[in-house]
Amino acid sequence: MNNRINIAIVGLGQIGGYLLNEINIKKKNIEIKTGKKIIINAISAKNINKKRKYKINKKIFYKNPLEIIKKLKIDILIEAVGLSGGISKKIVIAALKKKISVITPNKALIAKHGDYLSYLAEKNKVNLEFEASVAGGIPILRALKDGLATNKFNKVVGILNGTSNYILTEMERSKETLSAVLKKAQKLGYAEPVNPKLDLNGHDALAKIRILSSLAFNKKISNSNCLMEGIENIDLKDIQIAKQLNFKIKLLGITEIINNKLFERVHPCLVGKDTYLGNIDGVMNAVILNSKPVGETVMQGEGAGPGPTSSALMSDLLSILRGNIKYPFGIPSKARNKINSYDVNNYTNSLYLRFEVKDKPGVLSELTRKLAKNKISVKRIIQTPANINKIATIVIITHKTSEKNAKNCLNIFKKNRNIKKKPTLIRLFS
Amino acid sequence: MNNRINIAIVGLGQIGGYLLNEINIKKKNIEIKTGKKIIINAISAKNINKKRKYKINKKIFYKNPLEIIKKLKIDILIEAVGLSGGISKKIVIAALKKKISVITPNKALIAKHGDYLSYLAEKNKVNLEFEASVAGGIPILRALKDGLATNKFNKVVGILNGTSNYILTEMERSKETLSAVLKKAQKLGYAEPVNPKLDLNGHDALAKIRILSSLAFNKKISNSNCLMEGIENIDLKDIQIAKQLNFKIKLLGITEIINNKLFERVHPCLVGKDTYLGNIDGVMNAVILNSKPVGETVMQGEGAGPGPTSSALMSDLLSILRGNIKYPFGIPSKARNKINSYDVNNYTNSLYLRFEVKDKPGVLSELTRKLAKNKISVKRIIQTPANINKIATIVIITHKTSEKNAKNCLNIFKKNRNIKKKPTLIRLFS
Repeated sequence: MNNRINIAIVGLGQIGGYLLNEINIKKKNIEIKTGKKIIINAISAKNINKKRKYKINKKIFYKNPLEIIKKLKIDILIEAVGLSGGISKKIVIAALKKKISVITPNKALIAKHGDYLSYLAEKNKVNLEFEASVAGGIPILRALKDGLATNKFNKVVGILNGTSNYILTEMERSKETLSAVLKKAQKLGYAEPVNPKLDLNGHDALAKIRILSSLAFNKKISNSNCLMEGIENIDLKDIQIAKQLNFKIKLLGITEIINNKLFERVHPCLVGKDTYLGNIDGVMNAVILNSKPVGETVMQGEGAGPGPTSSALMSDLLSILRGNIKYPFGIPSKARNKINSYDVNNYTNSLYLRFEVKDKPGVLSELTRKLAKNKISVKRIIQTPANINKIATIVIITHKTSEKNAKNCLNIFKKNRNIKKKPTLIRLFS
Repeated sequence: MNNRINIAIVGLGQIGGYLLNEINIKKKNIEIKTGKKIIINAISAKNINKKRKYKINKKIFYKNPLEIIKKLKIDILIEAVGLSGGISKKIVIAALKKKISVITPNKALIAKHGDYLSYLAEKNKVNLEFEASVAGGIPILRALKDGLATNKFNKVVGILNGTSNYILTEMERSKETLSAVLKKAQKLGYAEPVNPKLDLNGHDALAKIRILSSLAFNKKISNSNCLMEGIENIDLKDIQIAKQLNFKIKLLGITEIINNKLFERVHPCLVGKDTYLGNIDGVMNAVILNSKPVGETVMQGEGAGPGPTSSALMSDLLSILRGNIKYPFGIPSKARNKINSYDVNNYTNSLYLRFEVKDKPGVLSELTRKLAKNKISVKRIIQTPANINKIATIVIITHKTSEKNAKNCLNIFKKNRNIKKKPTLIRLFS
C-alpha cells in the first residue's frame, strides 16, 4: 500500500456526512498513528444539493458511484447507503473486484451477502471491514476476531437494537403507549422517520445476531428461518405488570450452539430488574459473551447514532491503514462451514401469558384447565380486577415449557368467546 | 515473516505453563486463522524438575533464558516471569534488540519500563504486545488502540485488581475479617501465596492505571507520585456500615485529564450499591471509558487467573502472526509526550469518616466543631451505641471537600484522647 491513500465515500446521509467530517478533522492524527496520508477524492449521494449539516466539496461529487470505481484510483471505499442489495451491493462488489478495500456499517448487506463478499475480498486480497454493522459503540467484532481470538465461544446474548431498547425504556418511564413513544424516538433521530418497521420487528437485531454468530462460531452466515419477534405488540400494560413482578422487558438477540446445532433467535424477554441486562436502558447496547478459557465477557456502549457508528468506521479505517490484509470473518472462507439449525420446538422457557377475559365465574378455571391439558404448568397467577367494560386481566407465569407447547396453547385460546383478543406471550430470560 | 514461527516461553509458572498447553492444543486452529505454523522451540524456568500441571518437553528446556536468545533463531519471545526488572527486563531487552517480537503479561515491567521497551521495539521494527498486563479477560488495550482508535478519551475508571475485589466481596458475604478472607483467597489461587502486598496496597492497580492512561491519552507513562491507597485498612465494620448506607466499598483506579493535567489515582471508594460498578463482584474486573464521539463504553470480564490471562496472550500472539509491525502504544514513541500531573490537593470528594470514640458527653460536638473549623461540612451522621468497652462508633458522611482539607482533618484528630486510633477515611465515588 502506498503512503497516500485515496478514499471514496458513497452515501452522505446521517452516517456518511458525519464520517466525512470526522475524517477531515482527524487526518493529521491518523497520519501520525498510521504513517498514511489520506485523501478523500470522491463522494457520492442521491442529491448533490440536499441541505447537509457538514459542507461537502462539490468538485469531487459523483451522481453515479459506479463511475468512481471506473474512473478513479481508489484504495478504500466506504459504503454508507445502507441497502441490503441494490446499489449498496453493486458498488461493494465492483470495488472488491477492482482490489479496493471496503468499509461498511451495513448490517443488512453483510447479513445477507457477507459470505460472498468476504470470498471476493479474500480472492482479491483486500479488506472488507464491517465493525459498525453491530453495536456501533462497542468494538465487538474486533473483540471476537482479535481480542478474544482462540477462545471457544458457546453463547452470545445481546441487546442489539437501540431503537427498541429506547422505546421499551421510555414506555416504562413515561407510561405512554408504544406509538406515542415511537413518535418521540423518530423526533430524536433514534428511529427511522419513514419506515421504523425493521427496528421494531426484530429484523435489525436478527441481522446482527447472524453476523455475531458467524464470527463467534467460525461458521457461514445462516439464512434459515429463525424465531424472530419484535416489540410491536408489547403493550404498556405488559411493561407495567412486568415491573410489579420485578422484571423489565428487553428485546434480546441470542445465539448459541446446542449439540452442534446453531440456535439463533430474537424476541422480547422478561429479564430480572436487578440483573445486568435489566439495567441496560435507553439507546444502549450490550453484549454478553461466553467462552473458554476466558469465561464471561461483557461489553456495553451506545448502539446507534452517527457518533458511535463513526467510531467503529474509523477503527475499520485505521485497521486497513495499519495492517495486513485480514480475513473479513477472522478465518478463511473455505474454513467456514455451514451449520445445521437447532429445532426451535425444543426451546424451553418459562412464559408470561396475559389474557384479557370476560369477568365471569369459571373463566379462570377453564383457562388453567386448558393450560394443564397442554402440559403447561402454572407457577404464578396475577388477576387484576375487571375494568368498567367487565374485562379482567389474568397474567400467568408458567414453569418451563417447550416452544411447541407454547404455540399450541396460544392456538387453543384463539376462538374462545370468553377471551378477548389473542393472549400476549413473552418468554422469561434465564 | 516466514511461515514457520519459532516461539520461546520464559517462565513456566501458573501463567506460562497454562499458555504452553493452550498453544499446543490450538496450533492447528492458529495455523488456519493466520497461515503460520508455530513451533515452540525453547522453554525456560528456574527449576526443570518442579512438579507441573502440564508436561514440558525437557529437550527444549534452558536454565538460562538469555542463552535462548544467543543460540537459537527465535521469532517471538513470551516473557512470563513477572518481575518489574531483573531477568524479565534483561530478556525482553535482549530479545527486542535481536529483532524478536515480545509478548508479556507483566504490568510491573511495562508500567516501569514500557516507554523504553516500546522505543526499542519500534527501532527494531518488531512487536511488543502486553494485552494481558491489564484486566486479562477484557481486551481493553486493543479496544483503546484499535476498536476505539481516534476517539478522544477524557476519563477511564476501573476495578482492576481482582484479588482486592474478591476480598471486599467475600468480606461482605461471609462477614469475616480481611485477614481471614485473604487466607481463603490465597487457598483459591486468587492472591499471591507468599507476598500478597502488591495486590492489597493498590500498587498493582496503579501499574494498570498508568498503562491505561498512556494508551487512552497518547502520553508517555507517568512515574510521578500518585494518590495510592489499597484495601489493607478496610475493616469489616466499614463494609457493613457502607451496606447499611446502600454503598459497597470497591478499590477503584481512575485516570483523567483535568485542564491538560493528568490525574491518576487508586483508592477504595464507596460506590452506590445499585450502580454498575457496585455490582462488579468477586474476581471480576470492569473498565468504564469516556470518550468522544462514542460516549461511554463499558467492558467487564475476569481479571486474573491463567485462563483469562492466556486468552489475552493468545490474542497478542495472533496479532503478531496476522499483522504488520505495530506501535506498542498505538502511536510512535516520539509522538507521545510527557504530561504534567494534576495537584492532588485539589481533588474533591464527599468523605466517609469513621471515628471510634470514648462514649462520653461532648465528644460528638468536639468532633463536629473541629471538622467545621477545617472547612468540612457534615451531610449525615450515624452513631452506633457503645460496646462493652464503652467505645462508640461515629460515622460521618461529609459534603464535598478538597483532599487538602481531608488530610488536615485526619491530622487534627491524631492526638485526641477521646478518639481511639486514627479515623478511617474512604472517599465517595461520584
